[in-house]
Amino acid sequence: MTERETDAAAAVLAEIRFDSAGLVPAIAQQHDTGEVLMVAWMNEDAIRETIATGRVCYWSRSRQALWRKGETSGQVQALKEFRIDCDADTVLLLVDQTGVACHTGRRTCFYRAVRDGTLVTIAEPEADPKQLYGEKD
Amino acid sequence: MTERETDAAAAVLAEIRFDSAGLVPAIAQQHDTGEVLMVAWMNEDAIRETIATGRVCYWSRSRQALWRKGETSGQVQALKEFRIDCDADTVLLLVDQTGVACHTGRRTCFYRAVRDGTLVTIAEPEADPKQLYGEKD
Repeated sequence: MTERETDAAAAVLAEIRFDSAGLVPAIAQQHDTGEVLMVAWMNEDAIRETIATGRVCYWSRSRQALWRKGETSGQVQALKEFRIDCDADTVLLLVDQTGVACHTGRRTCFYRAVRDGTLVTIAEPEADPKQLYGEKD
Repeated sequence: MTERETDAAAAVLAEIRFDSAGLVPAIAQQHDTGEVLMVAWMNEDAIRETIATGRVCYWSRSRQALWRKGETSGQVQALKEFRIDCDADTVLLLVDQTGVACHTGRRTCFYRAVRDGTLVTIAEPEADPKQLYGEKD
């Protein structure tokens, strides 16, 4: 980590109000189209790594481990800008998403919407999850 | 609430995985520009009311009460579309924001960003919070 990255991470970590589990929710938004791709969680180490490497790293609550987005699937997120909100309890990551963000193979995780009085699927998979995650038939 | 709105709310509530406090985080995004405006929380009643009225209602954790966005400030959010993510544990509200979303008078709550190794303010207030909330000097 360069001195500038260390300073940036320290400035962010001094502000952020983590929850009782030491986590903060992070929204990933495609930097140019504005598409909201996904929401996940970050802890201190995930924030430090994301700022240091310029590749988004979350904290997986289910695996209780750092989750380097795209490590398995190749669907990485390059960090374009790191923002925080007024209460410093939510992070907004402007990213450049390679491929798809969602584990279902869809570009975004927000593919279900209320329309005409019911909940409908508004986006189809663009990639095969089996190929992304190396599962066999 | 019309039958269609009741059906829509029921369909959403059947899917959503609320946390242990009965809440789900909700992102408000300006429907046409894609700007992420704020993140707040919703409970069952807030979701029902939002879908029924077409005006966004959150749950205020600090006040422990329904929070009809803009009720005091006039800075209301008209609902354009209600979306949920793959895990059904985050809501994305496409809205038409009247005025500003942030209590600081800024259009968005995400007005601080990491740039050049430090955290800087990237947006200025567009409205006076004292006027929005009726405070006196």
